[in-house]
Amino acid sequence: MSTLVVDSPSVASVAIDPETVRVAWADGTTNAFHHVWLRDNCPCGACRHREVGERTVCTADIPLDITVQGAEPFADGAELRLTWPDGHVSCFSAAWLATYAYDRPRTATPTKAGTSAIEKVLWTTDLIRAQLPEVSYQGVMASDEALVEWLTLMHRYGFVIVRGVPTDDGQVAELARRVGNLRDSNFGLLWDVKSMPQPDSLAYTAVKLSAHTDLVSRESQPGMQFLHCLVNESEGGESVLVDGFAVAEELRRTAPQHWTTLTECVVPYRYLSVDTDVTASFPVIRLDDKGRYFEVRYSNALTAPLDLAPHQVLPFYAAYQAFSALLRDPRFELVFKLQPGDCEVFDNRRVLHGRQEFDPQTGARHLQGCYIDTDDWHSRLKVLQRTEDHRLR
Amino acid sequence: MSTLVVDSPSVASVAIDPETVRVAWADGTTNAFHHVWLRDNCPCGACRHREVGERTVCTADIPLDITVQGAEPFADGAELRLTWPDGHVSCFSAAWLATYAYDRPRTATPTKAGTSAIEKVLWTTDLIRAQLPEVSYQGVMASDEALVEWLTLMHRYGFVIVRGVPTDDGQVAELARRVGNLRDSNFGLLWDVKSMPQPDSLAYTAVKLSAHTDLVSRESQPGMQFLHCLVNESEGGESVLVDGFAVAEELRRTAPQHWTTLTECVVPYRYLSVDTDVTASFPVIRLDDKGRYFEVRYSNALTAPLDLAPHQVLPFYAAYQAFSALLRDPRFELVFKLQPGDCEVFDNRRVLHGRQEFDPQTGARHLQGCYIDTDDWHSRLKVLQRTEDHRLR
Repeated sequence: MSTLVVDSPSVASVAIDPETVRVAWADGTTNAFHHVWLRDNCPCGACRHREVGERTVCTADIPLDITVQGAEPFADGAELRLTWPDGHVSCFSAAWLATYAYDRPRTATPTKAGTSAIEKVLWTTDLIRAQLPEVSYQGVMASDEALVEWLTLMHRYGFVIVRGVPTDDGQVAELARRVGNLRDSNFGLLWDVKSMPQPDSLAYTAVKLSAHTDLVSRESQPGMQFLHCLVNESEGGESVLVDGFAVAEELRRTAPQHWTTLTECVVPYRYLSVDTDVTASFPVIRLDDKGRYFEVRYSNALTAPLDLAPHQVLPFYAAYQAFSALLRDPRFELVFKLQPGDCEVFDNRRVLHGRQEFDPQTGARHLQGCYIDTDDWHSRLKVLQRTEDHRLR
Repeated sequence: MSTLVVDSPSVASVAIDPETVRVAWADGTTNAFHHVWLRDNCPCGACRHREVGERTVCTADIPLDITVQGAEPFADGAELRLTWPDGHVSCFSAAWLATYAYDRPRTATPTKAGTSAIEKVLWTTDLIRAQLPEVSYQGVMASDEALVEWLTLMHRYGFVIVRGVPTDDGQVAELARRVGNLRDSNFGLLWDVKSMPQPDSLAYTAVKLSAHTDLVSRESQPGMQFLHCLVNESEGGESVLVDGFAVAEELRRTAPQHWTTLTECVVPYRYLSVDTDVTASFPVIRLDDKGRYFEVRYSNALTAPLDLAPHQVLPFYAAYQAFSALLRDPRFELVFKLQPGDCEVFDNRRVLHGRQEFDPQTGARHLQGCYIDTDDWHSRLKVLQRTEDHRLR
């Protein structure tokens, strides 16, 4: 991995204003930090636990009108040294201050979250079919560099095929644990996708599954899903993947009123079985607080009766059908057949998955799957990309 | 358990309007249902999988302008029978239609989510100290009725003390699995709270932990937390519980501007260790889309540097300190000492927990804990309270 080398920020001078400490950087820019904010973030060993790194200064006990008594550049501008009225001293690294400066223009994209710097490539089948994003099982199990490549591809395309996974029962869990803890659910830590008697999900029948996201009826959809192919001898049963963010963007471009409807109308989902009853209500297209795509939540099978105001009902159905049509459009619907040893791994909040109907009389079909939460796979990549002691952040 | 007996709704007459089917009930009220909505919710064995109960009708394929051809009350008004242009017949139970009617006044509280019907009792220490909500381990392990009582108390007070849990290693997992699947995290499925060398969390030291919620830096805070006391011989180490919703309500009553600040300003949280880096940003007081309390998210130790617009910084600190002061107010801060065999179980999104400092030189202190997601404990109670086959919903 290459590391980006940038000029370290350097403190040129510092001024104490009534509400803030104003830092002038060597490059001529300035940032202002409130006194109470600075006291709250003191990195010294009395204010942060030396071993754990967690904050031990009690925010609730800092006088709201606290004011720095002395402020000076230190270590040739690599640090800012503050003295407080009670004699306490805080030394901030210039790099840390520059990272967390909060008086930037608010329209700018925040740069703190390491992994979000990886640009998403919204894909159509034309773009992706010739070369599916893939990594080798041997590679990712043996090398952290290959693991970083895998997770980077996940951020970029929302899915990766891992090739050459031994077709042993439970092997998918070994692969997944290379990334993080498995997420349990009513289906178990590890579940078998095959046609079975007394199914409690359509997944466990042989019917076609139109593209959907999993666990829509739970508050948090799992962010990484594994489907490992052990046997695939039936006629039919091809896999389907669709980039939900690409489809959402196409809808926004071609029918913005439908896009708005799907970001606003809340859809109830419910999964019911002999031992489970979970419900969740969210829009089909969900944005984060900065207006970026957060997730797609879509499952025809688990949609509960819509509970919209009457005037929203027909607009919702029209928007839902327009979105659904794009999901099935050959421009967006990637169809391919998994071979034994292939494991498709996808961001279940972005890339919808499905399968064609298969005929269990013509041969066996057996996949095994499991989930990891978004928090965990994002964390894994950030830790692998670390360049400094975590207690310095 | 007693079952509430109510008059079943009965269809008196039905009219076909251009956009909707209008049902007149025997009690004189009416509800209108859009044609496409009715077709979408057909409960027949062709439109829902007979065994699984999931929807198999494809919403995307229903003509948006579909119109019922025939409509009539059936089975003495206990059902509504519809005939579609292609000859398909849908039979809805009157009770189902009345439950899912969506043209009620939108200000009314929805009544569908079974468990939310249990009223929350926001508590002060005066109210709760004389008699903490408690159940016996033997009872909840042996009887579903006792389990329902436990989970009902959880909904009401946000915490319950389970008494008489055998003080064996791992026993808390047995207790928790009576409710649902454990949630894994970087701390493991089951974690030991005691002072230990090389801690990666303040929990694993002997310092005071001011009241907080757990896993604030994850997208989803676990909704049910177990802390099982195995040994508690140290001086100090008393447990603290605070009803965060009660404190939020007190803030709203006494300082509404602070309350608004805490519901609006987004606070970043971050947990860092040798192998983990998880971040999440949410308000301290989080409301759901109907304006009800959804969760409190509060942890002084894991708050990352605030990233607010400069004009929000001082108002935020003022509001945060006001909220923090109430959390420590003896009116709200419940302090008690867990005895070996006690397990405190609390809704980690509502009830904050903490502990007093303890002196590991004076004796051992050892708790074991684990988490369950809100989805799962809510599901468990709904399933236990079921009165009909789940495929009929």
